[in-house]
Amino acid sequence: MTAHTEDTATAHEWQLIARPVGRPAPEDFRFVERDLRPLAEGEVRVRNHYLSVDPYMRGRMDDAESYIPPFELYRAMEGGAIGEVVASRSADLAVGDTVLHNLAWRDVAQGPASAFRRAPQAPGVPESAYLHVLGMTGLTAYVGLLDIAGFKEGDTVFVSGAAGAVGGVVGQIARLKGAARVIGSAGGPAKVDLLTGKYGYDAAFDYKQGDVAGQLAKAAPDGIDVYFDNVGGEHLEAALASFNRDGRAAICGMISGYNSEHPQPAPHNLFEVIKKGLTLRGFTVGFHTHRMRDFAREAGAWLAEGRLVYDETVVDGVENTLEAFLGMMDGANTGKMLVRV
Amino acid sequence: MTAHTEDTATAHEWQLIARPVGRPAPEDFRFVERDLRPLAEGEVRVRNHYLSVDPYMRGRMDDAESYIPPFELYRAMEGGAIGEVVASRSADLAVGDTVLHNLAWRDVAQGPASAFRRAPQAPGVPESAYLHVLGMTGLTAYVGLLDIAGFKEGDTVFVSGAAGAVGGVVGQIARLKGAARVIGSAGGPAKVDLLTGKYGYDAAFDYKQGDVAGQLAKAAPDGIDVYFDNVGGEHLEAALASFNRDGRAAICGMISGYNSEHPQPAPHNLFEVIKKGLTLRGFTVGFHTHRMRDFAREAGAWLAEGRLVYDETVVDGVENTLEAFLGMMDGANTGKMLVRV
Repeated sequence: MTAHTEDTATAHEWQLIARPVGRPAPEDFRFVERDLRPLAEGEVRVRNHYLSVDPYMRGRMDDAESYIPPFELYRAMEGGAIGEVVASRSADLAVGDTVLHNLAWRDVAQGPASAFRRAPQAPGVPESAYLHVLGMTGLTAYVGLLDIAGFKEGDTVFVSGAAGAVGGVVGQIARLKGAARVIGSAGGPAKVDLLTGKYGYDAAFDYKQGDVAGQLAKAAPDGIDVYFDNVGGEHLEAALASFNRDGRAAICGMISGYNSEHPQPAPHNLFEVIKKGLTLRGFTVGFHTHRMRDFAREAGAWLAEGRLVYDETVVDGVENTLEAFLGMMDGANTGKMLVRV
Repeated sequence: MTAHTEDTATAHEWQLIARPVGRPAPEDFRFVERDLRPLAEGEVRVRNHYLSVDPYMRGRMDDAESYIPPFELYRAMEGGAIGEVVASRSADLAVGDTVLHNLAWRDVAQGPASAFRRAPQAPGVPESAYLHVLGMTGLTAYVGLLDIAGFKEGDTVFVSGAAGAVGGVVGQIARLKGAARVIGSAGGPAKVDLLTGKYGYDAAFDYKQGDVAGQLAKAAPDGIDVYFDNVGGEHLEAALASFNRDGRAAICGMISGYNSEHPQPAPHNLFEVIKKGLTLRGFTVGFHTHRMRDFAREAGAWLAEGRLVYDETVVDGVENTLEAFLGMMDGANTGKMLVRV
């Protein structure tokens, strides 16, 4: 096979060099340039267009057993990305193909063709959408709401972190599937406006104003049936208090605690689980990828019809990936936080 | 209709007179004798033989909305009992019938016949068994393990409070239904011996020795798949740490926190729920009584075959009901705590 190469013999990548304690600090990382070895048979080289930064990455920075292994020190960190094949020694992928993969944080990735998959293409859909609304964060919203929380038409749904990449989609799917009422929490008035405006939430509140339980109770006078948890802590406690009987929570994230040096005590009102017959179910999307086909069909149609909308917060330059990640952890993003290489 | 009466014109009953703060104190209760009014048409009078005292009653002593209303002050408290009809003005129940009802803590109860139901009778089964192993605590074990936790053959099961009325039955049902391994915790060496001896648990440990998480990890080297929680707090935290992927918890009780003046913080490791895809599901047996027929058939057969065993701790005298209740909250019972009137 003829090797199709271009002169991308160097790559820039972010490496973790120390395990963060609490909030990650710049000294825990380094940004390095390195030479790429020639492609081996069966490998491809990809110039990334967009990199994804996501909350779960904080967990991979710790040296703790989890559902995915920790980042290795002094190796490029991993993460979702979309890019273009610029060299190929594989019959499976050709130069010019747009591919999705998990080998960011870097500008150029290479490896066996099996580590990359051709991105779906739909008219009018920008490729970045496959990193969020039509990708893993969208699938997370879909699986969490429908399969994990067992959403049913007529349910009242509460979503925390509702202006984030996952949360924004959850509320819209709930509305599209016939929720009685959709309530979201977010940080700051602009995001709250976005929820009730653009995303069609029935009610929203700013958790930074405090009294999450009180604000939720006011927004959900008849209680909630489903809670999609991206935040944990005080938000989960509020949801337990507002749940109706047989309520169901999809526990997707606990971003409020990710940078804590000491694990947070969970809600003080866990007894509600017994009193109300509640179900709390955790999940990570990697175990539910068999639903991608259903999700892509439904979400693709909603998007084409303009019934599903989204936001992106884009940071330019691979050298700013760490800044993008830290900003996302602090809630600087509206919708999906992306790095444009 | 002719009234069949006997000279039980007075009753002795326990009343709550103040809402306990923390551990209930004798001053929160009073034991009174009162005259019974003559039976009205459709009513029966029952001389109780055994009274049930159960952990959930602590919740009814608080003035808080729950799945059952609080006990009213200066009224007889309620609770399970079995007794004999001593007077009847109802065609549905005759003098001499043995009946189950929920109108204890008292020696004589009366009310509409619909508040009483004829107790099942099986050869060799003492009537007290219908207050536990063949009654509500047995049903709680059955529903919690099979329906709420979704027990499957080959699961490893951990039960806290395993020498109590519910816990003792859970482990035996798990074994009878093909558990790979059944592990229990209890307070003190005598109860631990009971678990591995009489009840057939594969392993057991004494939580009073501390390090619940460490003791569980040692008893369950390959992790646990199902956790039946009667205790909450540190036990739930230990279970979360020992769970295998897709683990399921039936949250039945949190007795470790019932006498706390301040709600206990839940486990510090709730993030395990996400990492491992765990399901925590709370329940109260009152919403699952449709399973009584299945339970009675299976448990009745096991009992008759000697494959299901139980213990009772019996306190004599209705005047000692409070002492029995408080002792049960402190773990003084082995198996079901009962009052023999």
